[in-house]
This record gives sequence, structure tokens and C-alpha cells, in this order.
Amino acid sequence: MNGAESLVRTLVASDVDTCFANPGTSEMHFVAALDRTEGMRSILVLFEGVATGAADGYWRMAERPASTLLHLGPGLANGLSNIHNARKACSGMVNIVGEHATWHLEFDAPLTSDIEGLARPLSDWVRTSRGAQAIGQDAVDAVAAARGAQIATLILPGDTAWNDGGIIGRGCETDTDAAVDPDAVDAATRALASGEQAMIILGGRSISGEALDLAGQIAGKTGARVATQFFSARTQRGAGRVPALRIPYNVDAALTALKDYREIITVETGEPISFFAYPDKPSQMKHPEAQVTQLCPRGVHGLGALRALASAVGAKPDDAVRQERSESLLPTGALNPTTIAQILAVLIPENGIVVDESVTTGRESFPVTAGALPHDWLQNMGGSIGYGMPVATGAAIACPDRKVISLSGDGSAMYMIQTLWTQARESLDVTSIIFANRSYKILQQEFAGVGAGEPGAKANAMLSIDNPALDFVAMSRGMGVPAVRVTNCEELIEALSRRLEESGPGLIEVML
Amino acid sequence: MNGAESLVRTLVASDVDTCFANPGTSEMHFVAALDRTEGMRSILVLFEGVATGAADGYWRMAERPASTLLHLGPGLANGLSNIHNARKACSGMVNIVGEHATWHLEFDAPLTSDIEGLARPLSDWVRTSRGAQAIGQDAVDAVAAARGAQIATLILPGDTAWNDGGIIGRGCETDTDAAVDPDAVDAATRALASGEQAMIILGGRSISGEALDLAGQIAGKTGARVATQFFSARTQRGAGRVPALRIPYNVDAALTALKDYREIITVETGEPISFFAYPDKPSQMKHPEAQVTQLCPRGVHGLGALRALASAVGAKPDDAVRQERSESLLPTGALNPTTIAQILAVLIPENGIVVDESVTTGRESFPVTAGALPHDWLQNMGGSIGYGMPVATGAAIACPDRKVISLSGDGSAMYMIQTLWTQARESLDVTSIIFANRSYKILQQEFAGVGAGEPGAKANAMLSIDNPALDFVAMSRGMGVPAVRVTNCEELIEALSRRLEESGPGLIEVML
Repeated sequence: MNGAESLVRTLVASDVDTCFANPGTSEMHFVAALDRTEGMRSILVLFEGVATGAADGYWRMAERPASTLLHLGPGLANGLSNIHNARKACSGMVNIVGEHATWHLEFDAPLTSDIEGLARPLSDWVRTSRGAQAIGQDAVDAVAAARGAQIATLILPGDTAWNDGGIIGRGCETDTDAAVDPDAVDAATRALASGEQAMIILGGRSISGEALDLAGQIAGKTGARVATQFFSARTQRGAGRVPALRIPYNVDAALTALKDYREIITVETGEPISFFAYPDKPSQMKHPEAQVTQLCPRGVHGLGALRALASAVGAKPDDAVRQERSESLLPTGALNPTTIAQILAVLIPENGIVVDESVTTGRESFPVTAGALPHDWLQNMGGSIGYGMPVATGAAIACPDRKVISLSGDGSAMYMIQTLWTQARESLDVTSIIFANRSYKILQQEFAGVGAGEPGAKANAMLSIDNPALDFVAMSRGMGVPAVRVTNCEELIEALSRRLEESGPGLIEVML
Repeated sequence: MNGAESLVRTLVASDVDTCFANPGTSEMHFVAALDRTEGMRSILVLFEGVATGAADGYWRMAERPASTLLHLGPGLANGLSNIHNARKACSGMVNIVGEHATWHLEFDAPLTSDIEGLARPLSDWVRTSRGAQAIGQDAVDAVAAARGAQIATLILPGDTAWNDGGIIGRGCETDTDAAVDPDAVDAATRALASGEQAMIILGGRSISGEALDLAGQIAGKTGARVATQFFSARTQRGAGRVPALRIPYNVDAALTALKDYREIITVETGEPISFFAYPDKPSQMKHPEAQVTQLCPRGVHGLGALRALASAVGAKPDDAVRQERSESLLPTGALNPTTIAQILAVLIPENGIVVDESVTTGRESFPVTAGALPHDWLQNMGGSIGYGMPVATGAAIACPDRKVISLSGDGSAMYMIQTLWTQARESLDVTSIIFANRSYKILQQEFAGVGAGEPGAKANAMLSIDNPALDFVAMSRGMGVPAVRVTNCEELIEALSRRLEESGPGLIEVML
């Protein structure tokens, strides 16, 4: 067995059975090993950012890592921006990066680069395999890191892949119990009993399932408020779930929302920080006198800590206030952020997954969709646009029985538009909704926000993408995904309703 | 004047008057400064790899650097693969990367990352501006590095951009005379007089203009052979120019082509190295006993050294053998690599620029097009696919009076397909020809080459992109570029002839 085969077999044995791949010559032995190994699903993508974004989406929904297969330093480089987003989301993944054979490196061939150097700034775990015999154990260590919500990058020189002597690695055990810090539970208990207004800010895997409900029970018992950051990796919401206040993006609005809270308890997240820096505005958005207590750090599942805290304060299931189902009416007429949100509130299917990169258009949709059927809502944690369509792809692979709705602005959709082809190839049940405002509208708002005044002609040219107009219907069909364009509420309702009755991929271009 | 304005004004004063940009919030003051500054052409792109690839193409044709404007670490990350390609081509560029305000960094906001760490593996020069007053001088130093064929990356924290106190930097002087090492000239003179068969391998800017002709004169005088690597940044070729042997890509073929040469003189390049490593094949493709003499290192213009060598050996203009114009006949019938090359040989216009990322389809086109009208041929130096369409864009910006033909495989075209929109927006005279073989055909060849045997079903799925079929005509029109599909020689001849009579962008999908 060569090194490449030992790698594939070790990954499968370690429950990593999905690989988002764009291979090249240096990865051919890994590709060949796929033929000899049962149990690894390999999914071809046309650009590496699609692979890493899909691995992010896969982790968020499956709660276990996928792997990626990337072609040397430049292949890794193309995947880095979505690795950045995944890392900020605390999504674990195993990146396999091919490398020239060790004896070829000194000659500085065209594709030679410092792969470890490129990997390190955005990886938590980096290793270059030292030989075919070592790869199995390297893979076990990489998977262990990834299961711990880390970015693991394993670099595989060609000769270590094709040489014989591979040994399947075993024994990748991860403590799936969430670690609990008793001092943190005590501190949070005291904070909730202090008499000050308290906020429990949830992040990571704590805005889901039992953890979210426990937070709601604690809040109901103590009078605290459950909240989330403006962006969260995965929020379970809708009818029957504990609703959480979403801290605003706008700094002034966030300062107002937070001004009365003197005790802040964080679970899998930090204190509220402004997304960007602005002249004369603070980075920290809490009240200056607010105390912050970290119940559970990022990357550690908050469930155990929330169980302990609920027990400490004596919270019971009946203490939680849960969201009522709101029976909204479908709007008619012009499409705008509000009517779009009203349509989503009615049409999001039960157990649907919404991947939100709608930027400006979707900014106001959260309150309107609060009483929709229960669903999961995924957001961009790293701020690098181009995350949405790849994450939707990975979510669909992880959850083949659930419907995925992918919301993108037109500017952000163009970053990884190649994703549509993989959705078609794999017949994924993803509906991409593109909001075509034909501008970087967020930037038009930010221009004033940073005190740059009013954009002139040259500046405006950098903020508009209306010339020429992008035709997403044509592009989508060109990649094998059926598509329609809608211009009013009636058309969007009809198109989305029809889509949700079908399976497989589709795209709706929403003209604004 | 704020720091951002001092930066734009310093760049313009330093003859950097082109910026390929995809800005975000942290770059808004730079964008605002464009309105207040004459002389900077800012070109919007939909993905950062387009910006860095365009800067590469701009350098190759203009022989001076352009700038890019990138949004924090992830924006830089998206540009890295084409920075890699540019660096291997010795193309200088100035990357401006926005960063959070310095006081915001400690809070680890979503877009925070180690930008210097990301920049360093692929940049020759990296600096983070320390304040508004420093930016002008920082920009002068960055431009000086870029003029020296280096990748310069200047990181601009938001507060240094928006604070007052900016000072326009002056005095960016670069020694444009090519440095000459007399010892190297002596060594090369001795090598040519040794009586052994000699090869002069040209790279960089030495395959153009006077440098190329001098190499031909030296070869004619001494009996040496002029050659280039398989890939070169810019090759001036066609009727009236000195023809150069292209060293084959295939290792066995290269070993055969090089077996009789015992003296190798390199100019702006190194000894021939195989592109990838293969089991049981050497990395060094020269004869084991061949001596290598470096006349001029990479990144230094070889003109001065070639002048000195021509003088030392007594070469005269009449000594050079120059290419005759070959009057080829246009083929009919089926499209294949040979007939496509025959069509190009007839239709490449005088002074045309061919950007070649045709991978397998174009591999055999070089001999057939040797006697075409004089033209420039640009190739991928770093091996990261997705270089072609962006480089064609930059070449067209640098040379608005010349026609650009961009040859891409379908797999490589999908990497930076967003480029088409910028070509439409700027009305660039670029004809994109996409060779649709619906596979990563190069990988199907490489699979056997690395000794992985015959691909099975799963491996083949990673090497084919036929399911679903990509429709480049639809995608191109969706981005505002007119497009046609051709299926035989007659149709390609008609479509390309018509395109070359028009101006502005167009795309031809060639079905193979």
C-alpha cells in the first residue's frame, strides 16, 4: 500500500468520508487511491475556494470534518479566504495539499512555493509528511485537530504519496463531551444573581438544540436576555425555539441595544466588537462598565457549561420563552428587503437551511422571519465574501434530506460563481437566490460610514457593478443549473414555491 | 491631505498610474482619494485574482508596474495564486492591502488576520505603514521594489489612510540600465569558444526586441542554439525575429532535445528543470556533463549582458538567422490541436498579443505558428491555472492599440471566469478562445505520467468536467461579452476573422 492509499484509508477509518477536491498532477496518487478505497465520497469543484467553503458548510451541519484536496501552494492559496471564514466560524476541516516530491524542491520548479508558510497564518495545525510510513499517523493527528474545531493542513510530498510502506492510522479518539470550567460557571451564576441587567451571548454550536434551549431556560429563570452576535455560524430559530436578540451591525445601533446591560455572559463567542473600525467610534460596543464573563470559550461546545449553569440557577424547561409561529401574509407588488423577508417567512420549509450572504438586502430579514417554521440560518463569520454558495454546497452534502436556500448579493455571488456547476453535478437540493441590486451597495453605505463623504464619479465607479449588467440566469444555465428571473413579489413567490416542491439545484435572480 | 490621498498622489508621481481594484470598507479612503487625484486609472474587478493577474499582464507588456487594491487579508489571499504566477514571471507589482485601524486589531474582528504573514511567502517586499506621514515614502519604496521586478505589498491600516498629515513621496529612481557582470560575460565567451555544442537559454525580457536579436547574432556567429524554457513570460516571435527552440514539457522529450549540449548559457532564467517530479525521472533535464553558465540572473534585464557578449564574440547583425514568413493554408474540417494552430498561424494579426493558457490543446501550436506575423506570446510561469484571462486583461490595458488573443482550456477558464465582466466593462480588445474538451485533459495525461496506472471510475470523475457540460457562450453573454460557438475549422476561421476586424471583447467557444 502506498502512502496515498494509507491516507485515504485512514481518513475513512477516522470518519472523514467526504473530500471536496480540485486535484492536479501532484495529487494523482491520492485520486488513484479513491478507486481502491470504499467509503470516500469525492466531490469535484472548479475552484479551490469552493472546496474550502464547502468543508465549512459541511462541518456546520454535520458537526464533523470533511477533507479538501488542493494542488500545491497556489491551490491552497485559492482556498485561503474561505479557510479564513471557516476558521472564524470554528469549523474544523482537514486540508490535504499536494507538494512536489522532496528531491524536486531544490530546483524551484514553477509550482514550487513555501506551502507551510502559506498555510500557517490561517491553519491551527500544519504538518508536512516525512514519508509514506508516517502518513497514516499524520492523518490521525490532522483529523483529531479538525474534530477539535481546528483548521488542519497536511502537506503531502509526491514521493511520500507514491512510495510503498503506507500504514493505516488508527485510534483517532476525540473527547466529545464538552469541557466545563466550574469557576466560569460560578462566575456566571454570580453575574446572573448580581441584580444588574444581564445578557447571555451565544455563539458556535450553542445556538442550536439543547444548548439554545438551556440558555432560554436560564434567561427565563433569571431575567437575562439571550442574544447572538450579528453574525453566527449556525442559528437554530423559528417557531418553538428560543428567540435570540441579534446585536446590530451598525455601531450606534449596537451601542443603544447594549447600553442597559452591565453583565455579559459569553458562550462560544467574545464580547461584541464592531465589524469594522470607524473614525471616532469605539471598537467595543458594550457599556464601558459592563462586566464580561466567559462561560465557555470559542471552539468548545457550550452544552456542558450551559447544563451546569442551568442547574446552578435552578432553571427548568418551563422557564424558557419560545417563539410562536407567526402566520404572515404573503406580500404583493414591489420587491424590497421587507417584502423579500415576508416571503421567506412564509416559504422557508420546516427544517430548511438558509445560508445568508445577502449582505444589504438581507440585513433586515431576521426579525421578519423569526416566526417562520423551524430552520437553521448560517452566516459569514470571517467577512470574506464568496462564502455563501460554497457553504450552501457543503451543507447540502451534509444534509441530503433537507432543503437549502442560499441568499447572495450579486457582488458576493460573483466571487465563487463556479460553485453552481458542482451543485448541478451533484444534483444538490440548493436554491440560490441572487439579489441583483447591481452595486456593492454595502460599500456605498460604508463610504459615508468611514467619513469619506460623498462618492464622486471615480469612486462611484468602484462601488457599482451595473455596467455591464450581470445576467445570472444566463450564467447559471451555462453551468447546468436551471434559473429564472423575478421582478415582483408574485413572481418570487411562484418561483420559490415551485422550486421548493422540486429537488435538485435552481437559481432565482431577484431584480431590485 | 490624508494618508490615502498621499498614497494615490505618490503612486501617480512615481509613474504607477493603473490600479486593478476590488475595494472594501477599509479601502474607502483610497477610493475617495481617486476622486481628488488626476492620473490614476482604476479598474474594477469582481475577484482579486483578476486584479493580481492583470497586474502581471500589465507589467509584461508595459515593462512597468501597476498597482492592485485588495481588501484585507482575505482579499490578498484571493489574489495570491496569480501573485505566485507573477512572481515566477519576475513581474513587478505594487499591492495595496487595506487593514483595520491599528486600535481595532486587538479585538480580533471577523476580518482580522495576519496580513504580513499571508503576504510574505509570495512577496519580495512587505511593509505595514506606521502612520499617515509615512505612507508617501512607503509608496516610493514599494514602487522601487516593483520596478526591480519584485512583488511589493504595502499594508495600509485604516487610520493611517484617513488621518491627516500625508506627504507625497518623491524621488523613486530606478537604474534602468541592465547590470552586467563582466566575469559572467567572460565565462560565457569561454563556453561558446570551447568547441562543445552550446545552447543559449533566454528568459524574462531577453526574448524580446534587441536582446533576442543579439542572442540570435551570437548564436549565428558561434554555432550555438537559441532556446527558451517550455514556458516564458513573453516571447517575441514570428516573421523577422530570431526563432528559439522551445524545450519540451515531457521529460523524456526534453532529455532527448538537450542530450547533445555540453555548454548551457542562461539569460534571465535557470537550467531546464522538469515541471513536475515523476517517479524514476530526473528533475534536471540537461546532460549530466553539461556545464551551466549564468550570463544574467532572473529579474535583471539581459540586454546589457547580451550586448557585452555579442561584442566579445564579435557577432554582427548579419550573423543572425531570422524567421521567414510562412504562408500557410487555412485548414478545413475537424478542429484539433493541429488545425487550430494552423488557423492561428494565418490569423494572428501583426503585433498581436497571444496569452496562452490552452494547456493540452495548445501544446503543439508553437512550431506551427513560428512563421506567423510578428507577435508576442505570453505563458504561465507559475503553473497555477487561472492566469490567462486576467493576464490578457492587463496586457490589453497596457497596449490599447494591440489585439489580444486569450487561449484557455475550459478547466482553466473557469478559475477566473469573472474576468470577462471587466473586459466588457473596459471595452478591452480581447478575444477569448475557449477550448472545450470537457475534461482536465492534462490530468488524464499526467495520471499515467506519475505511474498511477489507468484511472478507474472514481478517479475519472475527478478528471472530467463534462457533467454537466459548461456553456461558455451563455456564461460570456451573462457577463456582457458577445460569444459564439464553433464546431469546425470553417466556423472558427469565420468567427476569429470577424472578431479581429472588430474591437472590444468577444469569446469563441471551440468544441473539441
